[in-house]
Amino acid sequence: MTENTPRKQIAILGSTGSIGTQALEVIAAHPERYEVYALTANNRVDELIRQARTFHPEVVAIANEAHYDTLRDALSDLPIKVYTSEAAICQVVEAQPIDIVLTAIVGYAGLKPTIHAIRAGKVIALSNKETLVVAGELIQQLLHQSHATVIPVDSEHSAIFQCLVGEGNNPIEKLILTASGGALRDYSLDQLRHVTREQALRHPNWAMGNKITIDSATMINKGFEVIEAKWLFGVRPDQIEVLIHPQSIVHSMVQFADGSIKAQMGLPDMKLPIQYAFSYPERILSSLPRLDFTQHPQLTFEQPDVRRYPCLGLLYEAMRQAGNMPCVVNAANEVAVEAFLNGHLPFLSIADVIEKTMGRTAYLAHPDYDDYVATDTEARRIAQELL
Amino acid sequence: MTENTPRKQIAILGSTGSIGTQALEVIAAHPERYEVYALTANNRVDELIRQARTFHPEVVAIANEAHYDTLRDALSDLPIKVYTSEAAICQVVEAQPIDIVLTAIVGYAGLKPTIHAIRAGKVIALSNKETLVVAGELIQQLLHQSHATVIPVDSEHSAIFQCLVGEGNNPIEKLILTASGGALRDYSLDQLRHVTREQALRHPNWAMGNKITIDSATMINKGFEVIEAKWLFGVRPDQIEVLIHPQSIVHSMVQFADGSIKAQMGLPDMKLPIQYAFSYPERILSSLPRLDFTQHPQLTFEQPDVRRYPCLGLLYEAMRQAGNMPCVVNAANEVAVEAFLNGHLPFLSIADVIEKTMGRTAYLAHPDYDDYVATDTEARRIAQELL
Repeated sequence: MTENTPRKQIAILGSTGSIGTQALEVIAAHPERYEVYALTANNRVDELIRQARTFHPEVVAIANEAHYDTLRDALSDLPIKVYTSEAAICQVVEAQPIDIVLTAIVGYAGLKPTIHAIRAGKVIALSNKETLVVAGELIQQLLHQSHATVIPVDSEHSAIFQCLVGEGNNPIEKLILTASGGALRDYSLDQLRHVTREQALRHPNWAMGNKITIDSATMINKGFEVIEAKWLFGVRPDQIEVLIHPQSIVHSMVQFADGSIKAQMGLPDMKLPIQYAFSYPERILSSLPRLDFTQHPQLTFEQPDVRRYPCLGLLYEAMRQAGNMPCVVNAANEVAVEAFLNGHLPFLSIADVIEKTMGRTAYLAHPDYDDYVATDTEARRIAQELL
Repeated sequence: MTENTPRKQIAILGSTGSIGTQALEVIAAHPERYEVYALTANNRVDELIRQARTFHPEVVAIANEAHYDTLRDALSDLPIKVYTSEAAICQVVEAQPIDIVLTAIVGYAGLKPTIHAIRAGKVIALSNKETLVVAGELIQQLLHQSHATVIPVDSEHSAIFQCLVGEGNNPIEKLILTASGGALRDYSLDQLRHVTREQALRHPNWAMGNKITIDSATMINKGFEVIEAKWLFGVRPDQIEVLIHPQSIVHSMVQFADGSIKAQMGLPDMKLPIQYAFSYPERILSSLPRLDFTQHPQLTFEQPDVRRYPCLGLLYEAMRQAGNMPCVVNAANEVAVEAFLNGHLPFLSIADVIEKTMGRTAYLAHPDYDDYVATDTEARRIAQELL
């Protein structure tokens, strides 16, 4: 690192969300290495304006076109290009100067811009998990045809990625994905029936967005991560074990063919995997709080009780069926979680909505991109009707 | 790996000890990859004969010349070269066909043959820890001047080595060496006064030789490992933390400058690090028992109580003084442990012998090889007198 090393140009898709704002903290801590080239958001225009005035990107874009005038007017005194629409976001990520695209958009909406970033050969700091959950096979094909590389930002997949560094083609025997068990880990099945929004959002270890915190409480999140891991690391689902680890210190593990296990650990803080995705293969000094084992003298592990986590079982079933079925589960889950967060659906009914949507959506064994779009639309419609 | 890949030729120094016999098990499990070129032992001639008749090495050598005739006569029907004396062992390791030299000799006696193996440019599977404890600076110089590489076999250093694979020059913040706490971890200070040989040899997790099991009970072993780690991984002693981990599942850890910690785990079985040292950078399938977290649901960590482990404190003091002082501690410890094993010294007096020998041996700031030899001789004489 010298004064003349060019700074990496970063585009953050979903900059106003939890991952996006933490990524900006990482960039702010290393101004000699990273520069914000583009920021995009869906709806939170005021936060996007504030970020743009702080980080002076080349480009900002807002998906919801209703906010375009507000955004443009608020930044009219700065030399920042202002765009709107999802299509514009897909074009923004292709800009030549961009080195790294952090895909921190939540949900299905992250898929299309990620595809554009892959086609443009960028380094993808992948935080949008739906990209691989919904369209893993398609993404794999695109990656083979491009110069793009994917570095996972999820703490679990970042952990595995870190453990695999330097291991070449050494055969993986098993991946062990750890799971906190979510906000409701210690609730009885009866208590789960009457869970409120506030209870389900109280995650024991991680500060995350609302959608993913609920997905963590149902553990469908962990099922999504199993699908992601399958695509990212080229293993079979039966080589992926989920282990409840309430302390969230061991972020995940790899067991190799010789029986050796490597684990990556640390305090739960998403800024570490974000920074690693930006700095890889280097590691750079961070001021993040360090793990002190005298403060965390005990790490525990247990197998998940499948009866408490029916969504996890549904996702394994979707993985078995493959085709467009993970896409169906994702769409139904997005609809059901939104309904739960708005107080329109009891917590335990999230699994019911998913299960019924799976039964009613047309199955496709080998979907292409348009099939995914159609499946997503159909599954959302069915899930909405079920509410 | 094809049928025509030449098998790696391995020399095992100390083949009749605990590490040596386990190394032969590893080789026997992978006959398509490894071949025994040379076996050497100190005194156990019957075991050496049995090993030679099983593995058909090119060469065997026994250090104690009194056993030479027995060895030669017992193998006279086989085309195996038979040598004796320590000098012969030093020549054997230099043989051109040898790829890997496993230095599994216990104690100071391992130093000289290791130096010869380094000069001959071999891959050193380093199990003899005294090599680096006594003469780390000298060994570093020799390594810089040769094509030899060192792959540690100690479970702790193998763990760190595995965690560092692929990390390039990424800065290490801290190494965390785990320690079981040894056979006497749960004894009161008063109970320690009356410890018998049998009690001290009852290690909770690892099956090892007698000397190292006692060194584990006094935790001087962990101090030796701190010195080794300093030399192997180029860190300062204050960057090395010792953490009691009674389950011996996490074999050691590395904390990088970004705060990320990598750990290597597994059931306590020396065959894994031995195999890794042979197969590195590859990993090959092993039939070793796998770690099952449902059987090991809890991992705990605590700082060592320095009052219980005075030998550890003495070794830190020796590290601070540097020069020939670690060599003094090693020599005094070898004498004291032997006396304890023979019933001539109480357990708690091991530390006394070391401390007094440190005070009475001439200090040398920059010893060369001959100084180490002289220091070792002098310290042993002083320690013997103290008994």
